[in-house]
Amino acid sequence: MALARNIAVLIGGVGGAKLASGLAAVVPTERLSFIVNTGDDFWRLGLKICPDLDTLMYTLAGLVNPESGWGVKADSTVALDFLAQRYQVEPWFRLGDKDLATHLLRTHWLNDGRSLTEATACLVKRLAIRSAILPMCDEEAPTMLDTVADGELGFQEYFVKRSWAPAVRAIRHKNCERAKLSAQVRRALTRADIVLIAPSNPWLSIAPILAIPGMRDLLSQLAAPVVAVTPIIAGDAVKGPTAKIMRELGLQVRASAIARYYRGIISGFVDDLRNEPADFADLRSIQLDTLMIDQARKAALAQATLDWVGSWSP
Amino acid sequence: MALARNIAVLIGGVGGAKLASGLAAVVPTERLSFIVNTGDDFWRLGLKICPDLDTLMYTLAGLVNPESGWGVKADSTVALDFLAQRYQVEPWFRLGDKDLATHLLRTHWLNDGRSLTEATACLVKRLAIRSAILPMCDEEAPTMLDTVADGELGFQEYFVKRSWAPAVRAIRHKNCERAKLSAQVRRALTRADIVLIAPSNPWLSIAPILAIPGMRDLLSQLAAPVVAVTPIIAGDAVKGPTAKIMRELGLQVRASAIARYYRGIISGFVDDLRNEPADFADLRSIQLDTLMIDQARKAALAQATLDWVGSWSP
Repeated sequence: MALARNIAVLIGGVGGAKLASGLAAVVPTERLSFIVNTGDDFWRLGLKICPDLDTLMYTLAGLVNPESGWGVKADSTVALDFLAQRYQVEPWFRLGDKDLATHLLRTHWLNDGRSLTEATACLVKRLAIRSAILPMCDEEAPTMLDTVADGELGFQEYFVKRSWAPAVRAIRHKNCERAKLSAQVRRALTRADIVLIAPSNPWLSIAPILAIPGMRDLLSQLAAPVVAVTPIIAGDAVKGPTAKIMRELGLQVRASAIARYYRGIISGFVDDLRNEPADFADLRSIQLDTLMIDQARKAALAQATLDWVGSWSP
Repeated sequence: MALARNIAVLIGGVGGAKLASGLAAVVPTERLSFIVNTGDDFWRLGLKICPDLDTLMYTLAGLVNPESGWGVKADSTVALDFLAQRYQVEPWFRLGDKDLATHLLRTHWLNDGRSLTEATACLVKRLAIRSAILPMCDEEAPTMLDTVADGELGFQEYFVKRSWAPAVRAIRHKNCERAKLSAQVRRALTRADIVLIAPSNPWLSIAPILAIPGMRDLLSQLAAPVVAVTPIIAGDAVKGPTAKIMRELGLQVRASAIARYYRGIISGFVDDLRNEPADFADLRSIQLDTLMIDQARKAALAQATLDWVGSWSP
């Protein structure tokens, strides 16, 4: 297996960042390109917040809070507390002081006319990250959740403010028809020797990426293998609402349902060895330990996945 | 002397805020209106910073840092340090984390379409301040310093970045011809029973207010007494570049030069008892202890000034 392969990864937040961390440990980091969900992005107090971009950036810069998997380690909330105590601003979205620095700089650059792709590249460069971190698109295409009891909610209102409690009936990607594949995303995908879909929430983190016009076609036409890693282990999600949403959408909480969701895009599927062996139809599949509870296991999963795909006969 | 008098104060930053603090101790605070210099205002990292408005706000809310006289007490610089260390943003303008909360909220409201007067009123209300804090105008009219060796510098570049070291040749108030007297400023002045000019820097803090078209005329036509308090004590400024700038502009560093600068506007002048008795021509004048080194002396100066003006025969 040649080491100098280009790898592109479709990715969301905390779950995906674990695989990113593993890949960065076993692949020359400049060979990695991440195409990141921005459906979670929102504006708060005039600041543009991009949770998934930030989680990945902080992870690859070695700055992430290891307890939560998001935010900056050893951060404080002095500004947020002052806003709450003195200015009666409800602190439902936690913004650390260090984290604020990122939002300030990004918002400043965006208001100055840079695209999100450009602003992210500047942040990434200053953080000395050598991988490409690419927002899925430059346009805003926010994820909206149609809930059974509360109507349509914005992503952060559903996810953070309401702790993903409301039952979801449908999900839409607002204005996604106006989003465009950026030159950078297109290049990362067409140059890739392997495309991975991280074990992120398919409906909340990967679907927004797939909703960009042209993305599904591009992925299905690539010569390179496209391989998804299961976010479902032993009938549940490691973290977050993946399993809950699957049930609410009437799906069985099984890896095979995930593989079916990606049908037409993926050529291979990494299942977890804790799952019942399943029939993945015409897909190549393997069972690996996908529970990335420490850095060694993140790297091992990345390596095993790449080795497996590298072993495919051309 | 009736207590229920309306008092309007033209005011700059730290020096003026001491008198404001004294006035708030001896006058019902809802009777006080402050017309505040915004020539120092600037944009930093996409945030609108209004140093004099903030100094006054924090002072009247009991939140000001007592050591510096500006900024919030017990503040930290976590965001600023992160910007410097991780994003290579030069931290020349100190922004505390609590202070950032103010700038964030104000900038958010401004970008949302509120005027600076409205945004300031909202901050003031949330801080439970009962006095009116009015920006001198809603338009941007930044103070620019023509320096001998470095050409024209913006105020904060001169004052903070260069520690007011460059020699000043002239001062201009950029775009001041476009500034307008707001309804709130006009009302505060026409309703006032006494107008005070705080012991702020006449050239840097009061001149920008006087440069607003219509302001000099309005002040000179008021029936109410207009009284300035000297910022020069014993041949020097208590703090800041007042004396240095006077020398650079070829003026003698004397209270009489200050009184002359305000000629046509003021009817009375509060000199310091440490100064040589001077000839203030047709102005009423008094010598008081204007060195406000503690809260008792701030209140004493405020009370003595009001008593003196109140004793004038109508």
